[in-house]
Amino acid sequence: MSVITLTTDFGTGSPYVAAMKGVLLALNPAATIVDLTHDIPPQDIRAGANALADVSQLFPAGTIHIAVVDPGVGTSREIVYAEIGAQRYVCPDNGLLSRLASRENPSKLRCITAEKWWRSPVAPTFHGRDIMAPVAARLSLGLDPDELGPPLLELTTLDWPGAAKVANRIEGLVTAIDSFGNLITNITRDQLAGVPTDESVTVACDDHETQGIFKTYGEQPPMTLIALVGSSDMLEIAIVEDSAAIMLGIRVGTPVQVRW
Amino acid sequence: MSVITLTTDFGTGSPYVAAMKGVLLALNPAATIVDLTHDIPPQDIRAGANALADVSQLFPAGTIHIAVVDPGVGTSREIVYAEIGAQRYVCPDNGLLSRLASRENPSKLRCITAEKWWRSPVAPTFHGRDIMAPVAARLSLGLDPDELGPPLLELTTLDWPGAAKVANRIEGLVTAIDSFGNLITNITRDQLAGVPTDESVTVACDDHETQGIFKTYGEQPPMTLIALVGSSDMLEIAIVEDSAAIMLGIRVGTPVQVRW
Amino acid sequence: MSVITLTTDFGTGSPYVAAMKGVLLALNPAATIVDLTHDIPPQDIRAGANALADVSQLFPAGTIHIAVVDPGVGTSREIVYAEIGAQRYVCPDNGLLSRLASRENPSKLRCITAEKWWRSPVAPTFHGRDIMAPVAARLSLGLDPDELGPPLLELTTLDWPGAAKVANRIEGLVTAIDSFGNLITNITRDQLAGVPTDESVTVACDDHETQGIFKTYGEQPPMTLIALVGSSDMLEIAIVEDSAAIMLGIRVGTPVQVRW
Repeated sequence: MSVITLTTDFGTGSPYVAAMKGVLLALNPAATIVDLTHDIPPQDIRAGANALADVSQLFPAGTIHIAVVDPGVGTSREIVYAEIGAQRYVCPDNGLLSRLASRENPSKLRCITAEKWWRSPVAPTFHGRDIMAPVAARLSLGLDPDELGPPLLELTTLDWPGAAKVANRIEGLVTAIDSFGNLITNITRDQLAGVPTDESVTVACDDHETQGIFKTYGEQPPMTLIALVGSSDMLEIAIVEDSAAIMLGIRVGTPVQVRW
Repeated sequence: MSVITLTTDFGTGSPYVAAMKGVLLALNPAATIVDLTHDIPPQDIRAGANALADVSQLFPAGTIHIAVVDPGVGTSREIVYAEIGAQRYVCPDNGLLSRLASRENPSKLRCITAEKWWRSPVAPTFHGRDIMAPVAARLSLGLDPDELGPPLLELTTLDWPGAAKVANRIEGLVTAIDSFGNLITNITRDQLAGVPTDESVTVACDDHETQGIFKTYGEQPPMTLIALVGSSDMLEIAIVEDSAAIMLGIRVGTPVQVRW
Repeated sequence: MSVITLTTDFGTGSPYVAAMKGVLLALNPAATIVDLTHDIPPQDIRAGANALADVSQLFPAGTIHIAVVDPGVGTSREIVYAEIGAQRYVCPDNGLLSRLASRENPSKLRCITAEKWWRSPVAPTFHGRDIMAPVAARLSLGLDPDELGPPLLELTTLDWPGAAKVANRIEGLVTAIDSFGNLITNITRDQLAGVPTDESVTVACDDHETQGIFKTYGEQPPMTLIALVGSSDMLEIAIVEDSAAIMLGIRVGTPVQVRW
């Protein structure tokens, strides 16, 4: 059983996704293919890096994760094979693995340059279908990654805005909005260690404030603004049974402050 | 071959869905995972109950259906294992099984309380990933459901508005709008037994009326308002090759009347 | 291993899709089911034909592609089984196979009329669930297609607007808009053979013009209007890292001209 996941900015309904699945199954009909997400905003490498970091490590050891958020497709950017923890990745070397690699150094990195594992001809606008899918299918069948191309010395990484903790205050920002409209911040559970969770703590975002840090949404009545540590161990700001993003009109990048 | 389906309000593109699939496959790489739907409106337990009732019974006997529409996540609501007909369900005990259970009594009900089958630690905001997915995976591998926790005496159920048939009239309402904009009502095929289907019957919704009950859309020209009994055996109101919901501005809850 | 794909206008989140998968898996639990796309605009047979033509031939030989874009469901239109190239198709005979059949004659065509392979009763509004899914499942288990019904002499086809090449000019139009907002035209790579790709060629769409035909998006800076031959071998017009459809307000059907 080999599992292959797909993370793209193609949109869930896009036939481009099915094109990649067709190529994968034509080479390895026994592969189990899972959509990690196809709703990364177009060309948003950071959002792709977040999705990979939040979810990919839950999959079985040896799973191959293909990620195609690739504004530089067909230009000189490399395509890379990486092993991080027990997972394997095939993606453009444009920062998509930044968050994963910031937690744990890749144990193997290869440039994907050996054309014999690709489809032919390669469309310069769709390396997901013509390079990454056939390479991943062959890896799932046992191809040694050392056959893919020469070692890569270092991944391309993006700066990642961390939250800052100073005295009785943490300064962070909203880094993502989930499908419920919850505002996910870059303030980690670790940074909140030792911070009170009762009414003496204030969480502020834009000109909205709430007191206390809760464990789950249902601890407060519907329509209440609350702060809690979410399922990816990041502080989030939510409106119980409604969308904080819509109700408060807040976007990615808005500053968030915790003070006590 | 074990089949596991997922019904959630996470949104189709959400990486939260993939998180559950990662946990499932890490425990049972041979599971066949099917998306029942992830487009339940946030926290809309009734819509989740409708989707489960309309579709889940079509799956192979023994399929495990996980449903996560869970505004009470992390609070005192139970998580339940149920067997209804030949299907198996894992979901919060909040009414998601109301419509299924109204048709056929569950043959087995268990509270899911034995933590040894869960992930550890459990995030208080994501029991789908940390309790329901690992429990379902283990059930698919043969875990006896009696190991999950103590019997549950009775499911939580929601009141379900039924249509009323009196003399030459049925009073119901729109309970769902499908992806074509067709208005699905709570008037059943059984209630329509004996009702004429020719021009002597009028179906009214808001201030719109149409005569006759047809078998399929193509019996009338495009843009015609028609009534017919749909594929889930409920009366529906449609505009041929267009969206009745958009064209008529009608929402869930609007009264519908059949008279003859 | 048998692969079955689904192409519909149900919308990705629709439980109607899951209904078909339930029927498929109940008959063949070992089938690998792949979503080709469910985001065909409602009743848009041409868009369905495009998706099938662009993607289906990438799948393993013998894959069964079910396509349900079916405004005539329940009326006298036939349901057809077709073999084109190494692929197999089950769909209404309404033009969905027009583009595929224009490239290569079907090697086998059958009407699907033998009711013993169907679900019973058949809902007149959902032949995808009650006829096409069970027939496809049985084909995947080895049913001889000659058992499905009598031969069909000729597929229903739709006129397909081709681009016209005259002297130093090609006149075409926008036939699709992809999920990035790129404008896909009906001007083929073959028609562009011999046409210059440097600044001496102008590509015009509505009152917008660009010079040159590029290989990939990254050859020009973000926000630049460019023309290139896309991954399906058709000329497309794009705005680098943005949506040409939104920025230019262009729709399917807009004329496109290449002149040199």
